[in-house]
Amino acid sequence: MSKETIGFVGTGVMGGPMALHLLNAGYSVCVYNRTKAKAEAILEAGGTWMESPGELAAACDIICTMVGYPTDVESTYFGDDGLINRAKTGALFIDFTTSRPDLAVRIAEAAEKAGKASLDAPVSGGDKGAREAKLSIMVGGSESAYQRARPVLEIVGANIVYQGPAGSGQHTKMCNQIAVAASTMGACEALRYAEQSGLDPATVLQSISAGAAGSWSLSNLAPRILKGDFEPGFYVHHFIKDLKIAIESAESMAIELPGLQLALKLYEELAAMGHEQDGTHALMHWYRSKDS
Amino acid sequence: MSKETIGFVGTGVMGGPMALHLLNAGYSVCVYNRTKAKAEAILEAGGTWMESPGELAAACDIICTMVGYPTDVESTYFGDDGLINRAKTGALFIDFTTSRPDLAVRIAEAAEKAGKASLDAPVSGGDKGAREAKLSIMVGGSESAYQRARPVLEIVGANIVYQGPAGSGQHTKMCNQIAVAASTMGACEALRYAEQSGLDPATVLQSISAGAAGSWSLSNLAPRILKGDFEPGFYVHHFIKDLKIAIESAESMAIELPGLQLALKLYEELAAMGHEQDGTHALMHWYRSKDS
Repeated sequence: MSKETIGFVGTGVMGGPMALHLLNAGYSVCVYNRTKAKAEAILEAGGTWMESPGELAAACDIICTMVGYPTDVESTYFGDDGLINRAKTGALFIDFTTSRPDLAVRIAEAAEKAGKASLDAPVSGGDKGAREAKLSIMVGGSESAYQRARPVLEIVGANIVYQGPAGSGQHTKMCNQIAVAASTMGACEALRYAEQSGLDPATVLQSISAGAAGSWSLSNLAPRILKGDFEPGFYVHHFIKDLKIAIESAESMAIELPGLQLALKLYEELAAMGHEQDGTHALMHWYRSKDS
Repeated sequence: MSKETIGFVGTGVMGGPMALHLLNAGYSVCVYNRTKAKAEAILEAGGTWMESPGELAAACDIICTMVGYPTDVESTYFGDDGLINRAKTGALFIDFTTSRPDLAVRIAEAAEKAGKASLDAPVSGGDKGAREAKLSIMVGGSESAYQRARPVLEIVGANIVYQGPAGSGQHTKMCNQIAVAASTMGACEALRYAEQSGLDPATVLQSISAGAAGSWSLSNLAPRILKGDFEPGFYVHHFIKDLKIAIESAESMAIELPGLQLALKLYEELAAMGHEQDGTHALMHWYRSKDS
């Protein structure tokens, strides 16, 4: 049985390495990206360039997307030249973008109506996880679509969990970002207290990182903060996008998440200070700016 | 060389097991506790009962304290029958209580003036850490006092870190509690979002616990929340005490820690709801009470 042809829309820092892994696993891979230059590595490795998402959809069996914002997802999937309209009957969509749960449901409904299937499958693990094919993938959609996608997901991910019907992958990613926001805030506040009270923050980390205060943020972001390294792992402006989706979603469910609201407020102030293109741990600048 | 005699004031869920470990390590241990019944296990194991902290201080070389609140620390150390006045010249105090950094400095100054030495050495690791002698101990005070105390600390702790002059141990513990508060809040908010969005929260944890969202709270408290087990590891009312100390201390340093302020507000509302005697992860009840 010959392998299905895979299309990949969005070959940036995340989608690029993911598409390469699929190529290296023996799949035929068609690619489209708004900026063609960012697809060059994949084309050199044997990928096929497509002139539009619609053209790509018409040529592929499984169509992956990893684009920026929910508005990008929407314009890629819908419309006359969109993926849903142009894909062949029986095609499967996998959206790796972190996007709105309600949009994932809309895509799933439209896809089903058109005789196609879809999954929302946002990831965590960052560009490092993408390069090393160790992404955590949170999957929403029908179980049959999940079973069909599983061999593809296994090529790019390490912790692949089926979470439930359409939108469940996005909801799970929101849970992830909510916890990330709180622990990043906590790491920054602990460090801020440490430096202002005359402690050596690195020595403080030796006391607190392994116990009940421990978190990925404290173990991974705090040491970078202390080195003055604010390079993005994950961009502030992308994180703001995610936190906004989480808050809108929480509001639609009528639940109160004051920690999440506070985190978004601080990150928006941080962005206004000019740190949109820094990593999320640049939140430390917010705290340091509040010296009185 | 015969071992120094150790006194232990406060033999509750933390101090009790610690005093027992010291006895079992071959030290002579004198004990005092407000409620004598809570010292029985130590007396049966060979400890010596003392009628007051002052009497205990007069009989010992190293005097450990593990009492409840800063006001208890203050009344134990100061006054005519207090530890500082009654202890022999050359005695060493080790306060394991989580207490005010400025009080630790006052004790250190008064002790030095009286020809005695002191350390602030708050711990983390809970009653389990105390029973297993695996506490993390954050030490503030003079380096010579630290070197003298080290053999004693090694009997009750596993991660013993010298943090600097008097008060530094307490400041480090505040850093710890600040990070704990944020990650506990994050774990509760992630679970609240999960359960309200129709996800299976336990399946969500499979996706998010091992990555960037990971924390001790998410790995250890979240599963207990899902089982409906709100037994204290650490009591809400003790946590409120700690968060208040952290906030007063942050205010005195003129730094803004809005996450910490939010956490205290939520925990005070939780206590007002009747959850003072539950574990800190009972914070989940706050979120569940906000259904609209």
